[in-house]
Amino acid sequence: MSPRTPAPAAAGARRLTHHAGRPPRLRFGGDYNPEQWDPSVWPQDARLMREAGVDLVTVGVFSWAQLEPSPGERNFGWLDRVLDLLGEHGVDVDLATPTASPPPWLGHRFPETLPVDADGRTLTYGSRNQFCPCSPRYREAALAITTDLAERYHDHPAVVMWHVGNELGQWCHCDLAAAGFRTWLQRRHGDLDGLNAAWGTAFWSQRYDDWDEVIPPRAAPYLHNPAQSLDFRRFRSDALRDLFRAERDAIRARTDAPVTTNFMGFFHHVDYWSFAGEVDVVADDHYVDPADARSPARAALTHDLVRSLGGGEPWVLMEQAAGAVNWRPHNVPKPAGAMQLDSLRAVARGADAVCFFQWRQSRAGAERFHSAMLPHAGPDTRLHAEVRELGAALQRLGRVAGARVDARVALLHDWPSWWACEEPARPSDRLRVLDVLLSHYEPLFARGVAVDVLGPACDLDGYDLLVLPNLYLLEHDLAERLQRFVTGGGTLLVGPFSGVADADARIREGRFPALLRDLLGASGEEWVPLAAPSACTSAQFGDFHVDTWAERLRSDGAQVLAEHAAGDLAGVPAVTRRAVGSGSAWYCSVLLPPAVLSQVLGRCLDEAGVGGALPGPPPPGVEVVRRGDVLFVLNPGEEEVHLALPGRHTDLLTGDTLDGATVLAPRRGLALVEETQ
Amino acid sequence: MSPRTPAPAAAGARRLTHHAGRPPRLRFGGDYNPEQWDPSVWPQDARLMREAGVDLVTVGVFSWAQLEPSPGERNFGWLDRVLDLLGEHGVDVDLATPTASPPPWLGHRFPETLPVDADGRTLTYGSRNQFCPCSPRYREAALAITTDLAERYHDHPAVVMWHVGNELGQWCHCDLAAAGFRTWLQRRHGDLDGLNAAWGTAFWSQRYDDWDEVIPPRAAPYLHNPAQSLDFRRFRSDALRDLFRAERDAIRARTDAPVTTNFMGFFHHVDYWSFAGEVDVVADDHYVDPADARSPARAALTHDLVRSLGGGEPWVLMEQAAGAVNWRPHNVPKPAGAMQLDSLRAVARGADAVCFFQWRQSRAGAERFHSAMLPHAGPDTRLHAEVRELGAALQRLGRVAGARVDARVALLHDWPSWWACEEPARPSDRLRVLDVLLSHYEPLFARGVAVDVLGPACDLDGYDLLVLPNLYLLEHDLAERLQRFVTGGGTLLVGPFSGVADADARIREGRFPALLRDLLGASGEEWVPLAAPSACTSAQFGDFHVDTWAERLRSDGAQVLAEHAAGDLAGVPAVTRRAVGSGSAWYCSVLLPPAVLSQVLGRCLDEAGVGGALPGPPPPGVEVVRRGDVLFVLNPGEEEVHLALPGRHTDLLTGDTLDGATVLAPRRGLALVEETQ
Amino acid sequence: MSPRTPAPAAAGARRLTHHAGRPPRLRFGGDYNPEQWDPSVWPQDARLMREAGVDLVTVGVFSWAQLEPSPGERNFGWLDRVLDLLGEHGVDVDLATPTASPPPWLGHRFPETLPVDADGRTLTYGSRNQFCPCSPRYREAALAITTDLAERYHDHPAVVMWHVGNELGQWCHCDLAAAGFRTWLQRRHGDLDGLNAAWGTAFWSQRYDDWDEVIPPRAAPYLHNPAQSLDFRRFRSDALRDLFRAERDAIRARTDAPVTTNFMGFFHHVDYWSFAGEVDVVADDHYVDPADARSPARAALTHDLVRSLGGGEPWVLMEQAAGAVNWRPHNVPKPAGAMQLDSLRAVARGADAVCFFQWRQSRAGAERFHSAMLPHAGPDTRLHAEVRELGAALQRLGRVAGARVDARVALLHDWPSWWACEEPARPSDRLRVLDVLLSHYEPLFARGVAVDVLGPACDLDGYDLLVLPNLYLLEHDLAERLQRFVTGGGTLLVGPFSGVADADARIREGRFPALLRDLLGASGEEWVPLAAPSACTSAQFGDFHVDTWAERLRSDGAQVLAEHAAGDLAGVPAVTRRAVGSGSAWYCSVLLPPAVLSQVLGRCLDEAGVGGALPGPPPPGVEVVRRGDVLFVLNPGEEEVHLALPGRHTDLLTGDTLDGATVLAPRRGLALVEETQ
Repeated sequence: MSPRTPAPAAAGARRLTHHAGRPPRLRFGGDYNPEQWDPSVWPQDARLMREAGVDLVTVGVFSWAQLEPSPGERNFGWLDRVLDLLGEHGVDVDLATPTASPPPWLGHRFPETLPVDADGRTLTYGSRNQFCPCSPRYREAALAITTDLAERYHDHPAVVMWHVGNELGQWCHCDLAAAGFRTWLQRRHGDLDGLNAAWGTAFWSQRYDDWDEVIPPRAAPYLHNPAQSLDFRRFRSDALRDLFRAERDAIRARTDAPVTTNFMGFFHHVDYWSFAGEVDVVADDHYVDPADARSPARAALTHDLVRSLGGGEPWVLMEQAAGAVNWRPHNVPKPAGAMQLDSLRAVARGADAVCFFQWRQSRAGAERFHSAMLPHAGPDTRLHAEVRELGAALQRLGRVAGARVDARVALLHDWPSWWACEEPARPSDRLRVLDVLLSHYEPLFARGVAVDVLGPACDLDGYDLLVLPNLYLLEHDLAERLQRFVTGGGTLLVGPFSGVADADARIREGRFPALLRDLLGASGEEWVPLAAPSACTSAQFGDFHVDTWAERLRSDGAQVLAEHAAGDLAGVPAVTRRAVGSGSAWYCSVLLPPAVLSQVLGRCLDEAGVGGALPGPPPPGVEVVRRGDVLFVLNPGEEEVHLALPGRHTDLLTGDTLDGATVLAPRRGLALVEETQ
Repeated sequence: MSPRTPAPAAAGARRLTHHAGRPPRLRFGGDYNPEQWDPSVWPQDARLMREAGVDLVTVGVFSWAQLEPSPGERNFGWLDRVLDLLGEHGVDVDLATPTASPPPWLGHRFPETLPVDADGRTLTYGSRNQFCPCSPRYREAALAITTDLAERYHDHPAVVMWHVGNELGQWCHCDLAAAGFRTWLQRRHGDLDGLNAAWGTAFWSQRYDDWDEVIPPRAAPYLHNPAQSLDFRRFRSDALRDLFRAERDAIRARTDAPVTTNFMGFFHHVDYWSFAGEVDVVADDHYVDPADARSPARAALTHDLVRSLGGGEPWVLMEQAAGAVNWRPHNVPKPAGAMQLDSLRAVARGADAVCFFQWRQSRAGAERFHSAMLPHAGPDTRLHAEVRELGAALQRLGRVAGARVDARVALLHDWPSWWACEEPARPSDRLRVLDVLLSHYEPLFARGVAVDVLGPACDLDGYDLLVLPNLYLLEHDLAERLQRFVTGGGTLLVGPFSGVADADARIREGRFPALLRDLLGASGEEWVPLAAPSACTSAQFGDFHVDTWAERLRSDGAQVLAEHAAGDLAGVPAVTRRAVGSGSAWYCSVLLPPAVLSQVLGRCLDEAGVGGALPGPPPPGVEVVRRGDVLFVLNPGEEEVHLALPGRHTDLLTGDTLDGATVLAPRRGLALVEETQ
Repeated sequence: MSPRTPAPAAAGARRLTHHAGRPPRLRFGGDYNPEQWDPSVWPQDARLMREAGVDLVTVGVFSWAQLEPSPGERNFGWLDRVLDLLGEHGVDVDLATPTASPPPWLGHRFPETLPVDADGRTLTYGSRNQFCPCSPRYREAALAITTDLAERYHDHPAVVMWHVGNELGQWCHCDLAAAGFRTWLQRRHGDLDGLNAAWGTAFWSQRYDDWDEVIPPRAAPYLHNPAQSLDFRRFRSDALRDLFRAERDAIRARTDAPVTTNFMGFFHHVDYWSFAGEVDVVADDHYVDPADARSPARAALTHDLVRSLGGGEPWVLMEQAAGAVNWRPHNVPKPAGAMQLDSLRAVARGADAVCFFQWRQSRAGAERFHSAMLPHAGPDTRLHAEVRELGAALQRLGRVAGARVDARVALLHDWPSWWACEEPARPSDRLRVLDVLLSHYEPLFARGVAVDVLGPACDLDGYDLLVLPNLYLLEHDLAERLQRFVTGGGTLLVGPFSGVADADARIREGRFPALLRDLLGASGEEWVPLAAPSACTSAQFGDFHVDTWAERLRSDGAQVLAEHAAGDLAGVPAVTRRAVGSGSAWYCSVLLPPAVLSQVLGRCLDEAGVGGALPGPPPPGVEVVRRGDVLFVLNPGEEEVHLALPGRHTDLLTGDTLDGATVLAPRRGLALVEETQ
């Protein structure tokens, strides 16, 4: 079983890891920015890379001003030398288009390329990302340099992958963006009547009489129209995808190497479900926060999303930090072992390449305090020693390259729903989509259950348990597929504030969740943000309190598994379950405390007949996931754990044989293959 | 006894509640925005309104873009049909001018109509309120549509009231506003010498040499001139009043129906004392916060203000929420009974109409999560059942329509004083005018004492106790009237930081409170924001601590009732009382803790010979107020209360007879009429 | 021993305090703004000044609009009268150029003189400081009025000092500022290659191709280039210094009287080390916060800085508050005695003049609630009585006028290092330069040890202990002088995150602190912002925990005096000491808790052979400092303290003789001279 995206990424990763005549390998490396260093440093870099096992570096992400020092000029010589040098040392290159950061001359000569924020403030150069994706002048310059790069290096032997821009996420409210927005809206809504209906402009006298009146949501006296905001978010995401496509196509016209860009997991501003089908391999940047106790689950959830975006195909961890980052207020570095553990987590969840930002730590610029594989203090450091250990470890894991993670449980996450749900002036800003998603993931993660993360258009076949922690926007097509999923024997769990609105964020009238109430056998009439914790009682799950959120619900035939016990909601159901043949449909109208939510999900897993990667529950905090025939066991905690394992295994990382039980040190992982008798 | 405003509102409410040949009635309804719905929904709305007892709806508040889809066009047909339909169903109409939210075409074609904030940022359409009140172009368009509406519907039988704009509160810092400001300043200060003297421009070299230099307080390097800010606040408030007048006059020229606009209680930006005389009936929007334990007192205080603004005449509760609102971060809905209880509170304090925003909950737009009388889930809901119960309850209370609430106690509240007191760079931003006001109201409220809220120009005759919780600006005229009030036998209590400044916010020199120190027999020399609680002692009120605020005071003959007991203020008076014939003048230089303030006010009430609506103190939390011959008893709490009542009463709400004592359930109220033996 | 600044201020103070034929005196006074008052008030002011002992007032700081009511006009008559009147009453004048606050006509007629913030927002008049220091039009107008003032009053007998502007600290991001910035950069970096190298513009494609592209750091999509920000801070500081110089030179061309401007202690925006050499006497504004328990140490540290800025010469306390200020959110006034105590602290630390903002409290304007020597309530107040007591006290202290404070311990503080260290995206924003500085000062202050504060170019000779609490930027010259200091027998203590970067904020590669690691015998490889407190152990200092900050350090030969005891840092040194002949070099890689830091500094003092002003430790909270032959003992606390003194002393303030021991009341001070036997 596997997730099926609407447009699954082609198996670009395979072209990185599998080559005729040699065993499959995982890739290892990072961003390399040679332009920041004197050329005399480059040979040392190449040698140190080889010694560390680095075989893939991303070059050129921020090189535009070096490649095109003045308008139309081309300065490729230094890049020729770098690519040749890397190739000579066996280091392959992911060659980037430099379009994320135009040179100062572009903004200076063509101010219309600069982005404008919602307050009308022009953002200038001297940082990065200072462009409007809708500016023809910017696009012209970006495509010209991209084309020339592709033309020059399409057959360079070191270049094995292409990388468009960087962390695409810009936005702009300028008049060029407004024009682009109008064109997009015309495609979506047809005519102004369609727009006015979709946006509900009869409210607050917002009816548009002429297309020229339509603008992005700019600074206004009070709340914006939420449908306008939602469409502008969709447009922005699409505009960035279009920009990616344009650069990608310029490259594809000249080479067959896979083309990608680096995603950012649950990045709010881009709908990766609409984007993932455009890349040849999904790549992601992920920065674990060592100070956050929930970061292992957050990282695992994100990796599961990223793998799912690519239809279950292997993906590239394009950026992570070797130590501390620089952009949090207080940047805690990684303790010993964490770099490898974080990397193994990604590999266990489908990554075939483990890369870092960046190879050599910058001396200057805004990211001088972002750690790198080669720190300021040089190679004779604990951090760099760990880099070398990691390189060696990855070489022992070539066996998993190309392998998939099979999941029978899926969580659903949809960007437009997230956007619409968190528009201002909602019932409660304490109900946060990602928090609700993570809280539903954690009990599965703790049990070692493999999970895919699906978009609303993904195929549901092959899953036994489907969880919708919160799906504010729900369209008919998905509602019907959910119905079929349950009648086909699946177990469905729906969380609060779901099925509220249609694709234009208009509330669906009648009892909620509008398109699911028949399936669930329960329906509500009022959302109830709580002023104080509300006592609940359940024969199944015991007594507990819920916080933040409840709903005035009634059962229309479903079994009530928990209900409010006091106050204005006394007797109102909180958790319901409706059996549908061999399937079942659960509804949870409250934000359950973690222990209760874990029980509920445990019941759902039992009903669905799904278990974890180990026969029993893993020790607390231990992560287990099976990829291909390798069982990964990770201990991200500060204490050693005792682990019981059925059968005899070989640990690929150490070569040790484990017979039945073992002790796992803090921040250490195992990559186990069962020994055949 | 009753408050007398400088320009009491005409008894417009009487024209709504009293009609020849039928008993007086209270009005019930809400905003109705039919333009948001398909015409096929309208007949259902009219039927459901009739079933719920709704007999007054406000139509057209946000209809400009529907009425004038393009510049100069008129589209009245749909409104004709709506008004006819409502009339046929016995639902009267409060017809609104749609000027609060111009159509996008106005801002698009005439950007000078758009407001500009203090930072120079233009605020655009796509929300609401996007106009500069000083824009001639906006005013021309607003008056044109208003005139045409009045012309068309002045004799429509369903239209019983007119409603100008909505919650007038806009502000703008554009050049048009600057020009208006200058004209206003010329009227106030005469010439530039007058302006320079009033603003104290000798400070910081701010002297104006030419009228063209004078601008609103826009973004500046540091603190603004406080007198400039104060005058700009006055000007803004007056500009909105002028806008109201212009629209009102266009209506008055065509009909005798009462004209109003919806106030917002203690709304900071408009001086309702200067505005109240312009409306034919005072109308107010009030949104109780169910999560705020002090909201009953806040609501009661606000209702008492609103009634007093209209000279004690009945008023219209124009908007409240049936359940949750949408604009707080966490919007707690109303528990069972709260909708009716909140409505009864308004009626008990003088409201003759109880209305909601809005009739039918919007599917789209920024207020889709604002509750309504008819929720998304439809009429078969607890909320709508409560709406119907409320409609029925109001029908049983027609007896109070037109009746007054008689108060012998008054609190004084002045907008310019509030503005000036809370200008930046004051002694402490922890001294907040409304907090001080509320803390003085609560002990009176808890005793069931009827209170009026007066402006500085109101007549003081007929009151026995006058409380000035904080009156930063004090002019000679009021000071002299306070003197006469006390020498005439009244009891006066003055709170801290009062009498500080003149009408131009210039500090009055000498010991403070400058114009009252002789009357009070006490005076101060230094304001003392406290770094830590200060111990006080009092033979009358026991030992206590005060927080936040104190003053270096001395008695100039007044009796010292409490004084500081330690620290740098040891021995300094905190509460003084000077007997003046049969009257007395109290000064309280500290923010007393609630229990002590309650004792002080209790002593003042005793001196003034004023009691509550019941012979003894009501049970904690219970509100009692007498309006006409009806005694309202409300229990907003979560627990039932036992109530002793002298004599036999009939509860108008249930028809029950109560003999001596009764039990009042949580969130329930009584409307009692004493049975004549 | 004494600090030697790069450009020590001339002994301008001596010209104020020493006059032939009379004993030296301390000066006493404040800002006087007669233009805010009717001329009839002036004679009363002059009389009250004389009665209070005031003999120096600053006049004209905000008089531009009075002196030049319209462009080019001159209105000096009122100032003539004021200066004559003051002179007649024996009150000398510090005459200010009025350039801090241009009249409204300047900004109105010449909008290019107005400052623009980083968001592109123009800041307008109606406040103060509304000018761009780079505007030629502003400078022309400022120099014209300055020249005319100097011309007219250069020989007025009352004028003894000149005062340029006020608290120079403006900044601007306009195009004129950009042009000035480019010129400044050309001087600093030569050509564009130099700029690109210094700023590391290879990072993020920021390479400049043309000087016209270079702009201040304005609003941008993400982080700014830290070297650009650092240079812009340098430029701003220099631009203000240039502005000062221009006005000063216009005055110097006409008079020999000392010229100064009022500094603001540790003001972030101006590098006073680069500025101090330009003034004839250092003057400072200092506002103690009575609500802050650490304010005595803060004030003392600031006074020690200010004295050191002037090369140890006496300085002028130009502004302090007599009571409360107005610009904090909650402005606590001074309790009895605090005004004198705060003044004595300044005198003890080198001030020869004690002045206030301001003489008479304003009735209008943004500072109406700032206390003054003559409060609103008039002279018959406790505050004014204390002013008179202070005047009398200062007259008894003439003996210290001109005397120096000798220090053998120095702390180092550098503005560019502070700026660079606190640029965004650093390891932790919890490491704050001033906090670290103060925490190192407090143990010295508590011991009564005299301390100078040095800039990086100051001479180190004569000191025995040198403390670098945090010196992020470290250049070779200083590193070499530190080396010589230690080898010459000095004790050096270096705090965390020091020696990180070069003068262009580029990180120095290799183990840190790069230029000091050999001297310290210890080096680090990773900064470790802590997620939780880290346990440390020390044979010398006991067990303790550190918070916030640590470093992955190793000893390269130094003695390890404390080390981390657990977790990822277990065994890593935290405090090291390397003996170098009779000198020693300490490194502390953590933020020690106060008690441990005090022990460490105690050890350093012992090694350096430096003690406090008393033989033993002063009672807790008591400040002792020796200036000349006067021993100041101050008790800023709320409790009386018992004090043992060796020998017999006379208290200059009271004339009392103290023999061995005394009791010091709260907020009282002694100025003791040892009696010769």
